[in-house]
Parts: sequence; C-alpha cells; structure tokens
Amino acid sequence: MDVWDAIRAKRAVRRFTNAPLPDAVARRILDAGRRAQSAKNSQPWDFVVVRDRERLRALSQCGAWLGHVAGAALCVAIVTPSPAGNDRYVWNLFDAGQCAAYMQLAAQEMGVGSCLGTVYEAERARALLGYPEDRELRIVISFGYPDPDAQQGGLGRAGRRPFDEVVHWERWQP
Amino acid sequence: MDVWDAIRAKRAVRRFTNAPLPDAVARRILDAGRRAQSAKNSQPWDFVVVRDRERLRALSQCGAWLGHVAGAALCVAIVTPSPAGNDRYVWNLFDAGQCAAYMQLAAQEMGVGSCLGTVYEAERARALLGYPEDRELRIVISFGYPDPDAQQGGLGRAGRRPFDEVVHWERWQP
Repeated sequence: MDVWDAIRAKRAVRRFTNAPLPDAVARRILDAGRRAQSAKNSQPWDFVVVRDRERLRALSQCGAWLGHVAGAALCVAIVTPSPAGNDRYVWNLFDAGQCAAYMQLAAQEMGVGSCLGTVYEAERARALLGYPEDRELRIVISFGYPDPDAQQGGLGRAGRRPFDEVVHWERWQP
Repeated sequence: MDVWDAIRAKRAVRRFTNAPLPDAVARRILDAGRRAQSAKNSQPWDFVVVRDRERLRALSQCGAWLGHVAGAALCVAIVTPSPAGNDRYVWNLFDAGQCAAYMQLAAQEMGVGSCLGTVYEAERARALLGYPEDRELRIVISFGYPDPDAQQGGLGRAGRRPFDEVVHWERWQP
C-alpha cells in the first residue's frame, strides 16, 4: 500500500475481531515505531506490549475513553520520560507523536486497524505495567483487525479543516 | 512506495538540489499533514509555507541548526497554539509530531528529502512569518530533492536502540 493511500484511508478503528495478530505483523508494527526519528536521536520511548486479555481489560480501565483497549488484539503503551527535571519533555511528546504515526501507518498497510487512547489513571497504569517513576504513560494504541460488523464512527467531529485554511503561503494570513 | 519501505528508507536529508518542488508535490505533502489525526480532531496546526529564497535564508537564522532551511526548496513552519492558558499544550505537540511524520513519509514516497528543525529565536520567527501571539513556532521541516553529491550524514549519533531493549512484553522489564 502506498504511503499516500495509507494516509488517505486511515480512520480510527475501535472495534476489533477476535483474531490475534500474527507475530510477524505485531513485530513489524513495533519495529516501525522503533525506527521513528526523534530529536537528537534520543528515541525517548519504550513500548509495553499487552496481549493478555485480562491485562487488556485492566488497562482499558485507566482512562475514560479506553473501551477499545479491552477488545484489542494487542495494545502498545508508549512509555516516555516523566516531566520532573526533564527539559526535553515537550520534545519527548512530539517524538512520541511521530512514533505513534509510524506504527499506525505500518499497521494500516497490513490491514490492521488502530486507535489512540489517553491514559488518565496514571498510577493505576503504573501498577499494572510496572514502569519506573522516571517514566510515565500518557498514550496507548489499540491494534487489531477491524470488526466488519461494527460501527467504527469516532467520538468527535469528523472531517478536516480545508486546505486553504490550514496552509498560509509565505506569511500568516489571518 | 509501501509504507514499510518508506519507514525503513527514511533518512534526514539536509542538502538539496536547486530544483523546486512541483506544485502538485508540494500540495500533496501539505495535504498529508492536514489529514493527520489529532486529539479530539482538534487539528491544532497551521502551516506557513516558505519558498521565497530570501525568506528561507532569514528563517534559517532562527535556530542554531537550521542551515538546511536556507537551501530547501520549501519549508513548512508548523504553527501551534501557545502554552499560555492552554491545558492541551502537551497534546498539541504530540499531534504536531503525528502531522510531521505524515508529511515526511508522504514526501519520502515522492523522492523528496526532508529534515526537521527546531526554532529557538521565537520572536525573530514571529516577525518574519507574522503568526499571532496565541500561536508559536517550534518546528520547521525543510523539503527538497536530495543533493546526490552531498554528504547527508546527521549531526547526532546514528542507529536505533535494539528491538528487545525498546519492547517489553506484558510488563516493564528493567
């Protein structure tokens, strides 16, 4: 699948079939994230990869909108450095965004759907996944084969701002 | 070009030929960024797109490591909401990271090289590009056709952390 087609076709998928991801598929998704670029090549990420159904269910309780995690074939927790004493914190999150995009586009190409989720219950997630105090977890990504019988519509408004509103040539156009 | 091939082949390109980007190529790169997902579909980005050589040179003076901007065919300034009174700031930067990845992978597929840069001279950049006080500019991306005669080596260390160091199965493994 071409990059452009993957970008155009990409939609959030929140309902998955029961089929597991073959190991080669899972590893390619993870490897795509591992290969992402980052500021000064800092690679400020670790991936805790959850496939155990009970653990997926427990992780889905760590945020208000994480229901999709419970039914995922696999969930990647993107663990990044904590903010305390970290003057690169904002860049760490920017880089995590690049890393997430790589994983989701690599999945898309293999017919695997995905959905980003936000972790609000930080200490609950820490107890579940065991990462140390100098790391935090804000972002998880559910992966799995899209359930063809499920409504996949998102929670928020759909669509994108028009091209000519987003793009300013040479200087900001109010 | 497959997504996976684009991800595997992606390298920072800092030296470009003098060839401009055809309009269709430039617009596809920008449209890839426009189509990126974002928290609550907030799309917290505007792109100021610079092609004028004098403006590119001036923009290249807005950070210590922005030399690549001066020789780019086109530079995209990713303008995002300022931090003051903005409780979504960290998410805005995460989303900007996704957006940057989409643009760079779309460019890669069309044979266009790119390089991320960091803006340190914020007020100088603001005067040059004219975005309002409630927005800021931290990230620019240079785009252009790679100069085949130039050394494209990066500033930082190369390579990536090994897969088994980055990936933790089910729980964090120290």
